[in-house]
Amino acid sequence: MPVTGDSVSSGVMTVHESVIELCKGARAAARAVATASTDVKNRWLHLAADGLRTNEAVLLQANLDDVRSGRALGLSPSLLDRLTLTEERIAAMAAGLDDVAKLPDPVGETMARWRRPNGLEIAQVRIPLGVVGIIYESRPNVTADAAALCVKAGNACVLKGGSEALATNEAIAAVLSAAAAAAGLPAAAIQLIPTSDRSAVQTLLQQSEYIDVIIPRGGESLIRAITESSTIPVIQHYAGVCHVYVDEHADLAMAQRIAFNAKVQRPGVCNAMENLLVHECVARQFLPPMIRALRDANVEVRGCERTRQIVPDVVPASEDDWRTEYLDLVVAVKVVDSLDAAIQFINTHGTGHSDAIVTENYTNGQRFLSQVDSAAVYLNASTRFTDGYEFGFGAEVGISTNRLHARGPMGLRELTTYKYVIHGNGQIRE
Amino acid sequence: MPVTGDSVSSGVMTVHESVIELCKGARAAARAVATASTDVKNRWLHLAADGLRTNEAVLLQANLDDVRSGRALGLSPSLLDRLTLTEERIAAMAAGLDDVAKLPDPVGETMARWRRPNGLEIAQVRIPLGVVGIIYESRPNVTADAAALCVKAGNACVLKGGSEALATNEAIAAVLSAAAAAAGLPAAAIQLIPTSDRSAVQTLLQQSEYIDVIIPRGGESLIRAITESSTIPVIQHYAGVCHVYVDEHADLAMAQRIAFNAKVQRPGVCNAMENLLVHECVARQFLPPMIRALRDANVEVRGCERTRQIVPDVVPASEDDWRTEYLDLVVAVKVVDSLDAAIQFINTHGTGHSDAIVTENYTNGQRFLSQVDSAAVYLNASTRFTDGYEFGFGAEVGISTNRLHARGPMGLRELTTYKYVIHGNGQIRE
Repeated sequence: MPVTGDSVSSGVMTVHESVIELCKGARAAARAVATASTDVKNRWLHLAADGLRTNEAVLLQANLDDVRSGRALGLSPSLLDRLTLTEERIAAMAAGLDDVAKLPDPVGETMARWRRPNGLEIAQVRIPLGVVGIIYESRPNVTADAAALCVKAGNACVLKGGSEALATNEAIAAVLSAAAAAAGLPAAAIQLIPTSDRSAVQTLLQQSEYIDVIIPRGGESLIRAITESSTIPVIQHYAGVCHVYVDEHADLAMAQRIAFNAKVQRPGVCNAMENLLVHECVARQFLPPMIRALRDANVEVRGCERTRQIVPDVVPASEDDWRTEYLDLVVAVKVVDSLDAAIQFINTHGTGHSDAIVTENYTNGQRFLSQVDSAAVYLNASTRFTDGYEFGFGAEVGISTNRLHARGPMGLRELTTYKYVIHGNGQIRE
Repeated sequence: MPVTGDSVSSGVMTVHESVIELCKGARAAARAVATASTDVKNRWLHLAADGLRTNEAVLLQANLDDVRSGRALGLSPSLLDRLTLTEERIAAMAAGLDDVAKLPDPVGETMARWRRPNGLEIAQVRIPLGVVGIIYESRPNVTADAAALCVKAGNACVLKGGSEALATNEAIAAVLSAAAAAAGLPAAAIQLIPTSDRSAVQTLLQQSEYIDVIIPRGGESLIRAITESSTIPVIQHYAGVCHVYVDEHADLAMAQRIAFNAKVQRPGVCNAMENLLVHECVARQFLPPMIRALRDANVEVRGCERTRQIVPDVVPASEDDWRTEYLDLVVAVKVVDSLDAAIQFINTHGTGHSDAIVTENYTNGQRFLSQVDSAAVYLNASTRFTDGYEFGFGAEVGISTNRLHARGPMGLRELTTYKYVIHGNGQIRE
C-alpha cells in the first residue's frame, strides 16, 4: 500500500493513517497468534529461518542499498558495520530463529493453582501480552530476533527499526510474514513500519487501543523521549552503571579476576563494570596490581582522591564520572570507608542494573545482596552474567531496568501476562 | 510544615514544593521499610489498629468537620454516607489492620531458584516495589487499608485522598505515622498529601524520581485523567463490563442462579454482570423465567431485538448499553447465534474484567476459558468472585484491568517486584 507524507492526497494513506492501519492489523492478528499451538509457532520459526537462507541474495541486495545510502549520508564506520549484513550474519540470524523454536512455549503454563473452601478451582495461567511494539536502532538482525520472541510468546508485533536499515528490514519482514502465512499464522502478526518518516513513531506511541506495551532498544535519549511521549506502557532498558565492590574480607586474587572480567571482557555492553569500589583496609594492597592489570589491557583509570594517594598518576574522577556509562575501556575507582558506604554509593550513583560484591564474609555478602537495590546482585561473580542466555532463558529481548512487570533479563516469559481461569460447579456469592 | 498556594512567600512552601518534599521523604523512608522484618511491620499494624481505637474521639471529631463541610457544599447523601465515620467503621478499620498483620509477608519469598552449568546459583527473590502512590476518592477507610497493604509489602506510600475527607484522612494518617515511629519504622513511610489543592495531584504525577507506581482508585474519568498526565507507571482499575453467557448446553437452573447472583447480589461493584448473553437454542426456554426473576428483584431489563421477540415488553437495548457499566439494577440481554458469537461479543464489548460461561459441554467450556481475553474467566460460577478476599489473597488493593505487572485482584504480592540474587564462587565470563 503506498505511503506518503502528504495528508491531502486521496486514495493514498498518510503516514499517520498507515501506521494506525498496521497497528489495527496487528491487533486483529493477535488473537490468532495467542491461541496458535506451539507446533504452529515453531513451524513458522523454521520456515522463516529457511526463508532467510533461501532469500540470502535478496537480503544482501536490499542491505547493499541501505549501506550505500548510509555511506552517502556519512554514517560512522561502527554504525555502518552494525548495519551491514553478510552471509555469516544471515546464517546466524536464521540459526537464531531455529533456536527459538527449541525453547519451551511459555503460553498456557499454570503459574499457580489452588482450591477455595467453596470448591472453586482457581488457576493463574500464563497468556500472551497481546501486541508488542519494538522500536530499535540500526542492527537489522533485531527485526528477526524480536519478531521470533514476540510470536513464540504468542504476541503479534509492530516493529520500527532504524531508518538507515529500512530496505533490509523490509526484506527480512517480508520473509517473516510469508513464513507466517505458510505456517498458518496471520501474515499481519509481524508488522514493520515501512517508512523512515519520524512522525511514524509519534503515531505509534499513541495507539494504546491496539498496542499493549512498547519496548525501546537503543540509547538513553531515545528511550527517554519514547517514555515521555508514549501513552502505551513502556518497558525501559536504561543504561547500566554497574559496580564491583571489593570488601575488606575479599579474596583479593578473585576480586582482581572478577573486576578485570567485568570491565575488560566486553566493555561496550550494559552489564560491564563502570565503577570499582574498594574498602579502605585493602585498597593499598589491592589497587596497585589491579590498576596495573587494567592499564595493561588499555583501560583508562580515573580515581577518587584516596585512590590517587595510592596510585598517584591516576586521573582524578569528576562527580560526573560516577554516573557515567562509559561503554568503553574506562573505569572510575573509589576507596570507601565501609560496606555501608559502598551500598549507599551504589544505590545513589548506580542505575539499578547489576552490582557485585567480592567477599568471604557471610554477613557482609548477605547485607550487600539484600540492600543493594538492583535488578541483579552478585556475590563473588562478575556482573557480566546479567544476560538472558547466561541466566538460562535461552533468549533475550533486553535487560529491563523497570521495576514493574519485568526486571532484569527479559526472555519469553517476560513477554507474557496471565489470566485467572476458574472452574466451578454452580458457585454463587452469598 | 505550613503549606500554601502562594508561590512567592518565603519560609512557607508552595503546594508544589511541599508535595515534592513529601515524595522525597517517602523515597528516603522506603529503604528502611523494604528491609524491615515481618515482626516490625506487624507490630506497626497492631499499634496502628490500637491507635485508631484509642483516638476514636479525635477521628470522629475530624470526620464531623468534614461531614459538616460536605453538607454545606451540598454533597449527595450517598457521598456523605461514604464519607461518614462511625464507631463501628473505626472498629472495622482497626480490625482490618490487625487482619493484614496475619497475612504472610511476601517480601523475601524465593519465586524461583536454579543452578547454572558454571555453578552460579540464581534466585529470583520477591522485593518491595519502593514507593506506591495511591489516589482515591472520599472513603476515608482507604487511607488505613491502602497504607497497611503498601507497608506490609515493604513499600512506603504517598496517599492522596478526596478533598472532602481531608481532616479525617489527616487524623488517620497521623495515627498511622505515630504508630510507625513507635514500631521502629520511619514515620515518613506513610505520607498523606495534606491539601485539597488540585494542583497537588499534578505535581505528584510528575515525581517519577521518587514514586515507582501510581494506583488510582475511583471512577473511570479520574483514572483516565491520571493515566494521561502521569509520567509514573499507572496500574488502572477500570470499569467492569462483565458478561454471563448461557450456552446451549447449560444447566438452565444453574445458569439462572449464576446470572441472578452476578446481577443482583451486589450490583454496585465492578464484578457484577452487566450483559447477559444467551444461545439462541435455549433463549425461548431460559429467558422468560430469568427475566421474571430479575424483574422481581427490581432489575430493569433491556434487550436485543431477539430478546424482545421472546419477552415483548423488554426495553430495547441501544448500542451504548452493551458497553455500559451500570453499577445498578439494570441488565442488557442479548441472544447470540453461537459460542463464537458470544466470545467475539465479549472480547469486543467487555472490559477484560470478569466473564462467565454456564455450560455442561466440555469443549465449549474450554474454548470460552481460553479465548475470552479477560482477567478472570469462569466456568459455571458467578463473576462476583473476582475479589482479593474470594481468591484467598486475604486483602485487596483493587482489581487491575492492566495487562502489565498485575492483572485481576491485587493483593500483597502484586505490590512487589523482584530481583535476581546470584551466588558465585569466582565465576567470570569467558
